[in-house]
Amino acid sequence: MNLHQASSKPHELLATHLEAKMQAVNTLIHDRMASKHAPRIPEVTAHLVDAGGKRLRPMLTLAAAELCGYQGPFDVHLAATVEFIHTATLLHDDVVDESGQRRGRPTANLLWDNKSSVLVGDYLFARAFQLMVEPGNLRVLDILSNASATIAEGEVLQLTAAQDLRTDEAIYLQVVRGKTAALFSAATQVGGVIAEAHESEISALYDYGDALGIAFQIVDDLLDYQGDSKATGKNVGDDFRERKLTLPVIKAVAKADTEERAFWTRTIEKGRQEDGDLEHALVLLNKHDALQDTRQDALFWADKAKQSMSQLPDHSLRQLLIDLADYVVARIN
Amino acid sequence: MNLHQASSKPHELLATHLEAKMQAVNTLIHDRMASKHAPRIPEVTAHLVDAGGKRLRPMLTLAAAELCGYQGPFDVHLAATVEFIHTATLLHDDVVDESGQRRGRPTANLLWDNKSSVLVGDYLFARAFQLMVEPGNLRVLDILSNASATIAEGEVLQLTAAQDLRTDEAIYLQVVRGKTAALFSAATQVGGVIAEAHESEISALYDYGDALGIAFQIVDDLLDYQGDSKATGKNVGDDFRERKLTLPVIKAVAKADTEERAFWTRTIEKGRQEDGDLEHALVLLNKHDALQDTRQDALFWADKAKQSMSQLPDHSLRQLLIDLADYVVARIN
Repeated sequence: MNLHQASSKPHELLATHLEAKMQAVNTLIHDRMASKHAPRIPEVTAHLVDAGGKRLRPMLTLAAAELCGYQGPFDVHLAATVEFIHTATLLHDDVVDESGQRRGRPTANLLWDNKSSVLVGDYLFARAFQLMVEPGNLRVLDILSNASATIAEGEVLQLTAAQDLRTDEAIYLQVVRGKTAALFSAATQVGGVIAEAHESEISALYDYGDALGIAFQIVDDLLDYQGDSKATGKNVGDDFRERKLTLPVIKAVAKADTEERAFWTRTIEKGRQEDGDLEHALVLLNKHDALQDTRQDALFWADKAKQSMSQLPDHSLRQLLIDLADYVVARIN
Repeated sequence: MNLHQASSKPHELLATHLEAKMQAVNTLIHDRMASKHAPRIPEVTAHLVDAGGKRLRPMLTLAAAELCGYQGPFDVHLAATVEFIHTATLLHDDVVDESGQRRGRPTANLLWDNKSSVLVGDYLFARAFQLMVEPGNLRVLDILSNASATIAEGEVLQLTAAQDLRTDEAIYLQVVRGKTAALFSAATQVGGVIAEAHESEISALYDYGDALGIAFQIVDDLLDYQGDSKATGKNVGDDFRERKLTLPVIKAVAKADTEERAFWTRTIEKGRQEDGDLEHALVLLNKHDALQDTRQDALFWADKAKQSMSQLPDHSLRQLLIDLADYVVARIN
């Protein structure tokens, strides 16, 4: 990570490069989140859509399509599709996690109710499927419907695996592929598919999205234990308090002695937490180099993302995507 | 309704006629509800799928396809798609309605939790989209993705309209088209589309499903006020207690004097119900012929369904679908 990259945030450079297309995506999103009959739908959706997320996923689709020479209009539809799927999963996630805050604002389930979040999420999923049908490309439909199934499967797996100390790194990776990487990889892959790129390029775009998504989620899970809450918008230890078995804890559990294992069993599996437990968890994480090792894993995946870009045409967007992979892990560097 | 029809239940005759295909549908459903990684998914799904529902919607798809001369294998995929969408909406409905019972058994949200119902529902939606992509027919995808959006929109509309005394018969019809008729009409329409039927036939199949679905839901709402709980599996007055503004009450509210309006405002809008309120509600419904008029509406829609069949080829299945429309309203005759 050099100074130039650090000072010019790649996701902002991407946004500038893709500005015209992203405006079309935003217009389409606002157009399609409307509902003639049920005003609750755009109300709830706008609360999330206008909350100032980075729109990383739709930008990945647009960037992949342009990188592979796409000239048509449907990258906009697919980018909006990807953002709708993402928004729908956020609505349902907040219900499942009983969250009260997202991006520093109260969640929709708190402002309205769980019912609205469930049903408006369903509506956005359906809108996503309507949008993805419009380009008339069956392979795109195949990729996005498979990604949707992987996302939901990952979420269900997380339900049962999150508080189970037997969850190992392989299961963690499956969960992460489901909850995060599947949509990243579908977002980049469909960009290549509508551009009719070579198979090797489409495959490299998939690899990039997959690795970037995994790096992104590992960073998120790491920051939960060592982040600066002002910068991340999250409180240190949220995952611990919510008894989520993420990579740092999985690594510490794998090296735990009997007494330490009893601590994790009590705090994560049984959820009987006391004052001082988070501090003790941090001691154990540091004792076993779990945070350091987790950081190494994030860097490994970011590097994998960057390497996959070597298959793609030389283009300013290629460099931006490489820089983006660095940027994703810069928060922990 | 003659004696022959009454004694030979059309949905059972349909099931017999479509037995081989329905076995293929059931095999496909069980195959696709599996999950390599998350055993919670087939557990929750099986609880609903194996609960002994009538499988009316998939039978409508198979019947429509056969009636229009379809010979290929994809009617089975589309029938399974329709059943998956239906199952997913049931899972989410039970969360939204906070239901404890369905088809005389505890609901999934009670046996597991709301989280599992939300996420397994999402998984089944995604599986439905995977299945519907397989026939490779873009018009089918268009119809089913539109139906999914209409279903979700109807559910959200119901959220806000159900306890609002300004809800009139037009809004009720929109809700009913969303929550019930949209899937019926999509089920019949896609059967005609994959059979490459004439446009007039496809349109008639849509009309049949739409009218049958509306009749079906009106009957359901009527039986809530005058059904035999042993036969229906529901308790009289459930909708009243849950403050759902269905057609009988909408009709009574439209004719209410000031005092009666105050009663509906208190019991439905404000939900401050007391002993004897259900009995008084029934008095008001009868005073204004609301149950009788609701019954007439159900018969009107059943008749409309039957009439639309005149556009379709003469075939034993056509008669079965006509009889099915009679059967749907037979419960209130």
